[in-house]
Amino acid sequence: MNNSEQPVIAVIGLGLLGASLGMALRGGAYRRSGWTRRPNIRRWALDCDVLDETCDDIESVLNRADLTLIALPIPEILHYLKQYAHAWRPGTVVTDLGSVKSCVMEAAAEHLAPRGVHFVGSHPMAGTEKSGPESAFPELYGNADVFVCPFPDSPAFAVEQVEALWRSIGTRTTRIDAKRHDDLVAHTSHVLHIVASALALSVLGAPDAQTRAERFAGCATGFRDTSRIASSNPLMWREIVEHNRPAVLAAMRDFEEKYDSFKRMIESGDFDRFEREFAQGKLLRDSWVEYKNR
Amino acid sequence: MNNSEQPVIAVIGLGLLGASLGMALRGGAYRRSGWTRRPNIRRWALDCDVLDETCDDIESVLNRADLTLIALPIPEILHYLKQYAHAWRPGTVVTDLGSVKSCVMEAAAEHLAPRGVHFVGSHPMAGTEKSGPESAFPELYGNADVFVCPFPDSPAFAVEQVEALWRSIGTRTTRIDAKRHDDLVAHTSHVLHIVASALALSVLGAPDAQTRAERFAGCATGFRDTSRIASSNPLMWREIVEHNRPAVLAAMRDFEEKYDSFKRMIESGDFDRFEREFAQGKLLRDSWVEYKNR
Repeated sequence: MNNSEQPVIAVIGLGLLGASLGMALRGGAYRRSGWTRRPNIRRWALDCDVLDETCDDIESVLNRADLTLIALPIPEILHYLKQYAHAWRPGTVVTDLGSVKSCVMEAAAEHLAPRGVHFVGSHPMAGTEKSGPESAFPELYGNADVFVCPFPDSPAFAVEQVEALWRSIGTRTTRIDAKRHDDLVAHTSHVLHIVASALALSVLGAPDAQTRAERFAGCATGFRDTSRIASSNPLMWREIVEHNRPAVLAAMRDFEEKYDSFKRMIESGDFDRFEREFAQGKLLRDSWVEYKNR
Repeated sequence: MNNSEQPVIAVIGLGLLGASLGMALRGGAYRRSGWTRRPNIRRWALDCDVLDETCDDIESVLNRADLTLIALPIPEILHYLKQYAHAWRPGTVVTDLGSVKSCVMEAAAEHLAPRGVHFVGSHPMAGTEKSGPESAFPELYGNADVFVCPFPDSPAFAVEQVEALWRSIGTRTTRIDAKRHDDLVAHTSHVLHIVASALALSVLGAPDAQTRAERFAGCATGFRDTSRIASSNPLMWREIVEHNRPAVLAAMRDFEEKYDSFKRMIESGDFDRFEREFAQGKLLRDSWVEYKNR
């Protein structure tokens, strides 16, 4: 730990998630250090009380950190773990907030573990369809669930440091192993983005101008919400799906099973069953809403 | 027209849509009459300034109306058009707000046209996943698009009366024929409900308790919005899909084409194309958001 009384957390990357975390940590237990590639965003972070300190040189930031959180896209997390492994002090703890965990844990096992740097993955279930520091806000993580992915041999103190970070901003943590996590989020998040995008394309991408004008007028709040995440960052979602292919394809098959079943009921005219299935979906979703509002 | 200076509009059915319309028409050009099956809801409507007048007897309400709006589920619209055709005065205008228009227009042609009662269909693109008078609010129709479906031989004054009603509460109207309307809303609304329900079922309906608990924790705002309309009324959506089968199946095929195309890109590893397609969906949706906020 550094000379001051507060542990130093380094937030690497100040996009929507990193900058919102800096904001959420205001007045908390940590001294907030951090770094991002663009110097003007580093200055903005100091000016707007997103960070307490920064440095032009990422290696100095990492070296000073008791706890590091890498808030970057998946390919960059993989790159930074390799490129800057030497910069962390042995015994310090590193986490991330990537949407896919297996590939990140593999990179951490290869590059960080041999140096005695403890990696514990994180994935907060929070975000919007927007990106960049200009979209950040301190309440982004409010009431979120956060998955924490230790290695089987992670020391307890490292896992607890990461959990303590997340709990300090009011989120709930659940421990889960990386592969199980990746299967899970393929269902609860990744497949939704593919479906939302396919809906946006099939509803709004009409062949002629009149139909397109009518489709634009014919979409209302149902479309707005169902398709919202189709407005997400294409490169980010390409990278997430690309790094979680088998799990995403499995989640797609689960969706197709339910979808195809509805289709067969409509084709065969079995609307009693259609109504029962739809009611079952409503029951499940209503109980999820209750769970989230608890 | 009745003795008072204001034309009388009769709102039949005081669920989410009917009651919200009564609220939206407060202080407007119409004397608001209305009827619904349950006497306590009729009393509530008077107490809460949803209607100016009502009557225990629906036929008296219809007979006094210059313009009638039937705000009931599809099967009941069909039933009321047949059952109460004799109650309207010839020359008066009737509209509805059913989500499917072809079957309603056929019933109106059969039962109302021979009596000189003018039917012009309406479909406001407004609603929530809730239902019932307790969910009503005066802003429900704010900024909505409303499709108005005349017959080829509808008199201009009848169409204009219906359009004037909708414009008086700040909505935009578009004329469209019934079949084209039904194809349209199959895409912009009906298919979304099937997809949302299939997502809720496949994401939350996990086989074992641990997976289900993790799935509940793993769903966040993306799931909340993508699946919101899965919480809609199962009977109502059964009836809508049941009365618009061929168009719904066609809209499903259009969705599947885009979905299957994403799936093939993921299977074959063509992520450059995945990113381009996702970007195209984002572009379309972002331009729709701009259109809606204009």
